[in-house]
Amino acid sequence: MKNRISLGYGSGGRLTRDLIKDLFLKNFDNPLLSKLSDSAVFDLHGEKVAVTTDSYVINPIFFPGGDIGKLSVCGTVNDLAVVGAAPLYITLGMIIEEGFPYKDLENITASIKNAAEGIGIKVITGDTKVTEKGKTDGIYINTTGIGVVDTDIKLGMDKIEKGDKIILSGNIGDHGIAVLSKREGFKFESDIESDCAPLNTLIYSAIRAGRIKFMRDPTRGGLAAVLNEITEEGNFEITVKEEEIPVDDRVMGACSILGLDPVYIANEGKVVMVVKPDDAAKILSAVRRDPLGANAAIIGEVTDSKGNSVYLETIYGSLRRIDMPLEDPLPRIC
Amino acid sequence: MKNRISLGYGSGGRLTRDLIKDLFLKNFDNPLLSKLSDSAVFDLHGEKVAVTTDSYVINPIFFPGGDIGKLSVCGTVNDLAVVGAAPLYITLGMIIEEGFPYKDLENITASIKNAAEGIGIKVITGDTKVTEKGKTDGIYINTTGIGVVDTDIKLGMDKIEKGDKIILSGNIGDHGIAVLSKREGFKFESDIESDCAPLNTLIYSAIRAGRIKFMRDPTRGGLAAVLNEITEEGNFEITVKEEEIPVDDRVMGACSILGLDPVYIANEGKVVMVVKPDDAAKILSAVRRDPLGANAAIIGEVTDSKGNSVYLETIYGSLRRIDMPLEDPLPRIC
Repeated sequence: MKNRISLGYGSGGRLTRDLIKDLFLKNFDNPLLSKLSDSAVFDLHGEKVAVTTDSYVINPIFFPGGDIGKLSVCGTVNDLAVVGAAPLYITLGMIIEEGFPYKDLENITASIKNAAEGIGIKVITGDTKVTEKGKTDGIYINTTGIGVVDTDIKLGMDKIEKGDKIILSGNIGDHGIAVLSKREGFKFESDIESDCAPLNTLIYSAIRAGRIKFMRDPTRGGLAAVLNEITEEGNFEITVKEEEIPVDDRVMGACSILGLDPVYIANEGKVVMVVKPDDAAKILSAVRRDPLGANAAIIGEVTDSKGNSVYLETIYGSLRRIDMPLEDPLPRIC
Repeated sequence: MKNRISLGYGSGGRLTRDLIKDLFLKNFDNPLLSKLSDSAVFDLHGEKVAVTTDSYVINPIFFPGGDIGKLSVCGTVNDLAVVGAAPLYITLGMIIEEGFPYKDLENITASIKNAAEGIGIKVITGDTKVTEKGKTDGIYINTTGIGVVDTDIKLGMDKIEKGDKIILSGNIGDHGIAVLSKREGFKFESDIESDCAPLNTLIYSAIRAGRIKFMRDPTRGGLAAVLNEITEEGNFEITVKEEEIPVDDRVMGACSILGLDPVYIANEGKVVMVVKPDDAAKILSAVRRDPLGANAAIIGEVTDSKGNSVYLETIYGSLRRIDMPLEDPLPRIC
């Protein structure tokens, strides 16, 4: 009996998927939405236009490696990039709490400006609402991104086959642990920084290097959620090797202390690619040439064209099933 | 000294304009944004694409004549319609408070579905976040609308000239008073209903009837804010006649009791048009033929091509200056 919305409904895990399928897809069913892609791509007189939207409610709003402003630009640009779209424009909807420091708003705005300029996109329209004190936690930001797919890339889970390789563009867990540490006031050896970054250039290089069949950025729910989305939607089995998954030692240490598994931790500057086996090495090289992809690795492959499970081959050689997270261990991570 | 964000910064009045100019335009300056239009319109290979975004934080979320779901569709569609765009798609970003009743979310979703289907637009992508109890007031919704300008209409404040007529599509104040009454538990003679409605069909008929030079829907800040935006940006003087401005008796009564002026009250199903004098009668007829425009009227005209004031000719014949509201008398009205 679903009576109340719990935090898990916003986790990016099982409950979020349930909400989307039970409520939103049932009501708004249409071919664009039902793909549940990171961006909807529609044809406009021969032009393939990509649109994506995201609200950011991260706490704290300033964290090592970024802030809600940079995050709200990069996160949305990455959702465009993973469908093969070049980002063009962004909209900006702010909901601000009464009493929010003007100086913080200035800093967030400057951060948005810097991120947008770095990517080469423009903020073309916006909206600002203010709620009474206590009705918003500082500031929430919605960004909608608009881009065009200007390559002939054909992405889709339906293109995935047994033997396809899984490329991960770098270390996982940095964002989640950085935000959690700041929020809870944990002191680790040295500050872990969020990986918050725009992936459009890295992805564009990868697209030119070889045949990519599907991409998704592992944000809420982490690597585990993305791999499970692929296996569930596509009816595949994927096996990844623990020893190939790059994790920073400090993040691994923090996860051990906190009882967290890095495969479930959110990232904001990483992409998972399912690629044609013959092209995997070329694509990996291209990704590694980008500074954001220096630690990229082939972490596994599609091991069966049936089934819908994700397996982790541990460093001891045993197979452990990685389930779709029910809830996120870290709420308000983006 | 601007230290803290007050509710007025989200009012649609003077403080909102200041925030946009001092902070957002300074940081994001570009030709699309700097028009401060209801929708940004950009060229995409010969197609004029319109994009607008709005966040809805209305309290209460269910009110006579609508709810936050219907409002978030109609409000965004109206921002497309006033730039002459036919709406195509909408995105949906929800921020929900932990503990929010699932049943309410179902009702809001059904309301969005009904509004979207009535207009003929599709929800193509979305995002759901959940915050801890007390960090959101029930639910906030962001919608971004995408449309195409498929007529050769040329709108812009720079097209306005002395003698142009001002058409208002119907009664003002219904939305604000309906929401306020519900929020505060006021009991008036009979329930006043919000005018929340999509204006795209009405506006499309008006465009075909004659030369419209500028349109805007008088939401936050009401009729007064829209008229002041026109006079300030365009350096005009506008005079409207009190006796020509349609106001429901019950709304007028409520305003008297509450000490409010209907020209400052938000509407969600009305449009203000500045039109060529020779075409005013034809456009008025077209608007009146639409059920949503039955009470439309020519309420005044551009009385001088210099100055930047709005005057109200009262029923006693005196002239009263209508200033841009500093703050909204009714926060969280949309």
